[in-house]
Amino acid sequence: MRVGVLTGGGDCPGLNAALRAVTKTLILQHNSEVVGIRDGYHGLISRNIQSLSYQDVSGILTRGGTILGASNKANPFNYHPSGGADVSAKAVKTYRDLDLDALVAIGGDGTMSIANRLSDLGLNIVGVPKTIDNDLVGTDRTFGFDTAVSIATEAIDRIHTTAQSHHRVMIVETMGRYSGWIALHAGTASGADVILIPEVEYDVEAVAEVCEEREQGGQRFTIIAIAEGAKPIGGERAVRERIEASTDPVRLGGIGRVLAEQLKDEINSEVRTTILGHMQRGGTPTSYDRNLATIFGTRAATLVAEQHYDVMVALQGNTFTQVPLSDVADNIRNVPLDDPLIQAARQVGTSLGVSDFDREVETAPSSAE
Amino acid sequence: MRVGVLTGGGDCPGLNAALRAVTKTLILQHNSEVVGIRDGYHGLISRNIQSLSYQDVSGILTRGGTILGASNKANPFNYHPSGGADVSAKAVKTYRDLDLDALVAIGGDGTMSIANRLSDLGLNIVGVPKTIDNDLVGTDRTFGFDTAVSIATEAIDRIHTTAQSHHRVMIVETMGRYSGWIALHAGTASGADVILIPEVEYDVEAVAEVCEEREQGGQRFTIIAIAEGAKPIGGERAVRERIEASTDPVRLGGIGRVLAEQLKDEINSEVRTTILGHMQRGGTPTSYDRNLATIFGTRAATLVAEQHYDVMVALQGNTFTQVPLSDVADNIRNVPLDDPLIQAARQVGTSLGVSDFDREVETAPSSAE
Amino acid sequence: MRVGVLTGGGDCPGLNAALRAVTKTLILQHNSEVVGIRDGYHGLISRNIQSLSYQDVSGILTRGGTILGASNKANPFNYHPSGGADVSAKAVKTYRDLDLDALVAIGGDGTMSIANRLSDLGLNIVGVPKTIDNDLVGTDRTFGFDTAVSIATEAIDRIHTTAQSHHRVMIVETMGRYSGWIALHAGTASGADVILIPEVEYDVEAVAEVCEEREQGGQRFTIIAIAEGAKPIGGERAVRERIEASTDPVRLGGIGRVLAEQLKDEINSEVRTTILGHMQRGGTPTSYDRNLATIFGTRAATLVAEQHYDVMVALQGNTFTQVPLSDVADNIRNVPLDDPLIQAARQVGTSLGVSDFDREVETAPSSAE
Amino acid sequence: MRVGVLTGGGDCPGLNAALRAVTKTLILQHNSEVVGIRDGYHGLISRNIQSLSYQDVSGILTRGGTILGASNKANPFNYHPSGGADVSAKAVKTYRDLDLDALVAIGGDGTMSIANRLSDLGLNIVGVPKTIDNDLVGTDRTFGFDTAVSIATEAIDRIHTTAQSHHRVMIVETMGRYSGWIALHAGTASGADVILIPEVEYDVEAVAEVCEEREQGGQRFTIIAIAEGAKPIGGERAVRERIEASTDPVRLGGIGRVLAEQLKDEINSEVRTTILGHMQRGGTPTSYDRNLATIFGTRAATLVAEQHYDVMVALQGNTFTQVPLSDVADNIRNVPLDDPLIQAARQVGTSLGVSDFDREVETAPSSAE
Repeated sequence: MRVGVLTGGGDCPGLNAALRAVTKTLILQHNSEVVGIRDGYHGLISRNIQSLSYQDVSGILTRGGTILGASNKANPFNYHPSGGADVSAKAVKTYRDLDLDALVAIGGDGTMSIANRLSDLGLNIVGVPKTIDNDLVGTDRTFGFDTAVSIATEAIDRIHTTAQSHHRVMIVETMGRYSGWIALHAGTASGADVILIPEVEYDVEAVAEVCEEREQGGQRFTIIAIAEGAKPIGGERAVRERIEASTDPVRLGGIGRVLAEQLKDEINSEVRTTILGHMQRGGTPTSYDRNLATIFGTRAATLVAEQHYDVMVALQGNTFTQVPLSDVADNIRNVPLDDPLIQAARQVGTSLGVSDFDREVETAPSSAE
Repeated sequence: MRVGVLTGGGDCPGLNAALRAVTKTLILQHNSEVVGIRDGYHGLISRNIQSLSYQDVSGILTRGGTILGASNKANPFNYHPSGGADVSAKAVKTYRDLDLDALVAIGGDGTMSIANRLSDLGLNIVGVPKTIDNDLVGTDRTFGFDTAVSIATEAIDRIHTTAQSHHRVMIVETMGRYSGWIALHAGTASGADVILIPEVEYDVEAVAEVCEEREQGGQRFTIIAIAEGAKPIGGERAVRERIEASTDPVRLGGIGRVLAEQLKDEINSEVRTTILGHMQRGGTPTSYDRNLATIFGTRAATLVAEQHYDVMVALQGNTFTQVPLSDVADNIRNVPLDDPLIQAARQVGTSLGVSDFDREVETAPSSAE
Repeated sequence: MRVGVLTGGGDCPGLNAALRAVTKTLILQHNSEVVGIRDGYHGLISRNIQSLSYQDVSGILTRGGTILGASNKANPFNYHPSGGADVSAKAVKTYRDLDLDALVAIGGDGTMSIANRLSDLGLNIVGVPKTIDNDLVGTDRTFGFDTAVSIATEAIDRIHTTAQSHHRVMIVETMGRYSGWIALHAGTASGADVILIPEVEYDVEAVAEVCEEREQGGQRFTIIAIAEGAKPIGGERAVRERIEASTDPVRLGGIGRVLAEQLKDEINSEVRTTILGHMQRGGTPTSYDRNLATIFGTRAATLVAEQHYDVMVALQGNTFTQVPLSDVADNIRNVPLDDPLIQAARQVGTSLGVSDFDREVETAPSSAE
Repeated sequence: MRVGVLTGGGDCPGLNAALRAVTKTLILQHNSEVVGIRDGYHGLISRNIQSLSYQDVSGILTRGGTILGASNKANPFNYHPSGGADVSAKAVKTYRDLDLDALVAIGGDGTMSIANRLSDLGLNIVGVPKTIDNDLVGTDRTFGFDTAVSIATEAIDRIHTTAQSHHRVMIVETMGRYSGWIALHAGTASGADVILIPEVEYDVEAVAEVCEEREQGGQRFTIIAIAEGAKPIGGERAVRERIEASTDPVRLGGIGRVLAEQLKDEINSEVRTTILGHMQRGGTPTSYDRNLATIFGTRAATLVAEQHYDVMVALQGNTFTQVPLSDVADNIRNVPLDDPLIQAARQVGTSLGVSDFDREVETAPSSAE
């Protein structure tokens, strides 16, 4: 058997661990040949490849990044370097010319959407989910998420001491353009007083109220974790308006800084913003992510050996399984408002930035069972 | 309502996070009074207590240890300081005198066993599971485990570079007296070549063979992760015999060192052992453990408010639920040999120290679904 | 003896370690009473104090922040809360009323400048230097710096893997408004290809050239570490012009983002900026900073006992000594261009953003001896 | 020019950073050819080599271990594989056959001693000092030390929480066979109550007294940092006697465990020992060690270019310089008892395990200036 493998989309801790697991399993258990496709789908379009031996993937388990390179702008159906042309035929041709029996595509929702369309063109594909945002449909967890949360938590821990010593409101903007998983998990883990996520439009007055109540209660600081995709009531338009009203719009950029401006209108405390940015998606994965990537990778290799295609490996509860690629494509998994961690955060007094919601903490989460 | 809370058993990252969650939820959501019992069941027997306010548990989320103190030698039914006497009546009396409505007991299997027996004497108890070993029955995860695995993984990562540079066999002994969860997770996460756990008696010749095959394949080093409770074929007796046969028995102590002696009989490479010890159970918890402890703690408080007693909060798959204390008591949850991580480890070529088992890697884990 | 102690200026890892050392030494070795002044000079002006016992400072060695609180806007000679009035008489009065024999002021150049002026008013002061920027005159090292460099290095390490996998130019903005110590040390430690510091105005074309040469040499990524106070040739005016010329000035703010815009004019690669911000100045100090703070603190206590006032403790080479407060006040210690680390960075090929300078690497640094 | 480079002795974080600096500087600044000698002096004896290009050393700055391999049993004057024969002629022959102009030897005192003797046989050698123990004569700091101290400090931090929660005496054994630098720095940084180093024979009764005084003062735990080379009064003989008197000598091995036995004879508290072992010498170096290794490496390359041989690069105070190899050979740099950190540790109340010494804390360390 001859199997291609590629890594697509943004950087994500655990990519190399997954690559290693796919490659070692195919070589050791299935006597396959493994072909690395470079720079995501770019390499499939332009036939940029390298063979992958057992030795090539030895020692990469702990390393961040991907030895194959990646790209998040390499859609064969809308190819940037060719002005948005459909060059999928080139991708199919490379697959045929290389005489591949199957392709393992490691990536996020973009990569899975493309994989799904390439499946329709006859390619045998197994997907491996990755995204630090944890918002892929079909799987409860993706590798990279635990690492991103750990990094963000450690950063907020550090900022906590400054907030406390200097009596400040400190805003920390985490990644999460469409979903609030990172902000929720890192915010709760670091004891943030307010957590703002894209799933709930925040009320700046409710946030200001938290700051003031804490001040009055003698706790002269407040920590706010905000996902980059969070929005105030009024959404994108409200953000734009606040920016235009700013006396120094130059320093804005990022919802964390917009919120700081909004809060300064309401409270007297000093407010500071830190945008965590790219460091959340690089470097050595946590042990959890290494193991999740390893399990996903070995299972993808097994599915290939079983000729079980057009699926993505997945974790549901404790069960490792697979879901059709078509279920995953063009979709986002949001944080449900009854998520156990949201419930727990609210019970220990964390605000989600909406007064009414904050007040009505369900007191009986266990009665459901 | 007036609720007691105690932390029993060995140290475990997340105890303070759980204490904080229990206390904050009881105060904020249920207007309860919270009484901290010091030093585990000791404090219940000797009435060593302190009141716990919201302020007392603020800022402890990230700290290791427990602000209440703990003890793993404080069984009221077999009390060491009283020469093994049954002093449970004293514990019951303190509970009554303090006018407690319920008691939240945070601990491991020992703590839950005692809680179960105290329930029979009329105390209203809700248990919160903790153990770094992850071997408590009734719950898929306990807090402390992810932190212990992270610490062990980081230690093995460091030892890896020495093994590689100096062409050595490096043995790392992790905690896990009765179960291999830490060794399995940290070993797989750090790419150990051999993982030895209590659930599988190891064959020293199979381990030696791995070392030699790697040497012959040009990889002049081997990493072995071994749980403290692992045993060779022949069990405890075989260990004793090897120790007695040693020319320098003084330096033995710990199965990791016994294995080193055994291997030196078989192979030429230099062999070194590191015993990770207590640093696996202290210090700041990971973000994962902080969140798990927070959810468990809030749910225990809610169960108390619902007068839902004689249970331990638990995580099963994605579902937070509760199990009867009697199910948990006097029991151990071992690593099943078809655990997904065992399967994945074997597929990437990791040995479990038994030749036959190593060879027969199941190639179709996914076919089950 | 009765001694006051305060922590002034911005947050800095090691403040608590220094407080502990001052307090323990005064109590244990000199039988003194220690009075903590809260929120820097604020507490001296408004008589906001607390007594400090041995027990109060036990266990704070490893904690970030300061248990006394701090303020970087509390100049008694120009007091914000009183509209910039000179309220130094109040500070002197508090000192007299409290019957203090001396005051230990832990802080940066602002704190030392004020200490110097208060000395002139008759207060007995010993200064302890702290700043994460390491740019205090009179001492070769300040605590907080090693921690800031470690955090920044770890962040750049993480960003490195993304740059490499995604073939990007990644800009990381570190702290350092007036000096480049953090950017230089973290940049060199993480193998940054370009390091831009306030001491050297950078030539954007020289930076672009480095990116292109690397691209052509097959290394398809570049890491740039830039201090927040770095400026292009043309200085502040050039920055303003670039911002005004931007099509989306809203997202600017921070020299790192300005540089990204400048580079996009010159090269084709994707460019991304991360601003590390406040997380560089909070949290647990490194072992190095804990020890430096401990030595500084004990020495300050000893100077107080010896009635050796109006000085700041300092490290010069290997020698712990003290310098007059007047030498430290209103001054900055820049990175000299023949600093050993600048020389080393240039020899391994790191650019400082100026073509001519980059080319003329001195090849004989050792010939001086 | 054609220059060989090797790494000798035990593993040490920063070896790859030094290799990279030597190689890049020689290639970029001096247009040299660089030949890597594998496995320390082994490779020189058996002509096991590889060429080192700029690309070979790119990306290794942050990695632990050494890409060349090392050996601490490869003395050409007393060669183990040849039964202790003098095979130095072979080493000289390889050097000549490879047409080397010079050799850069990165290592500790063993490596420098051999380098010194090879110099006498006509080889042009520049040494680069490394040892995690920091006990090399001629230089104030070696790379690897800061990393080892950081790891040990983090481990003691973790163990601290367990000691505190469980009211235990916790002993942590660090590396340091001949000198106490690691134990002193990690012990002070983590607030150990007792620090035992090879330079001061400890009195077990003085140690027991510290434990009891703390117990009586309400601090029901004690942390003891002990270097592996520490000895009680009576030295090696006293250790042997205690081992022989043990009822379970099997579990002894390591002075930390011997001390535990000794203490159990004297006090009632539970005592536990953790031996940190090899994890102190592997893995990613700290930013400090990366920079020190980079400076040392570039300076060694420059000395080679200047034909300035038979020296080892060194740091003295703030000055980077070099010292004759003959000064370094067969020598150890102990911790002086008036070291600033020893003074500081004693002033904050840390015991060195000798009652009289503990009591006589010098109160005037600053008067010297």
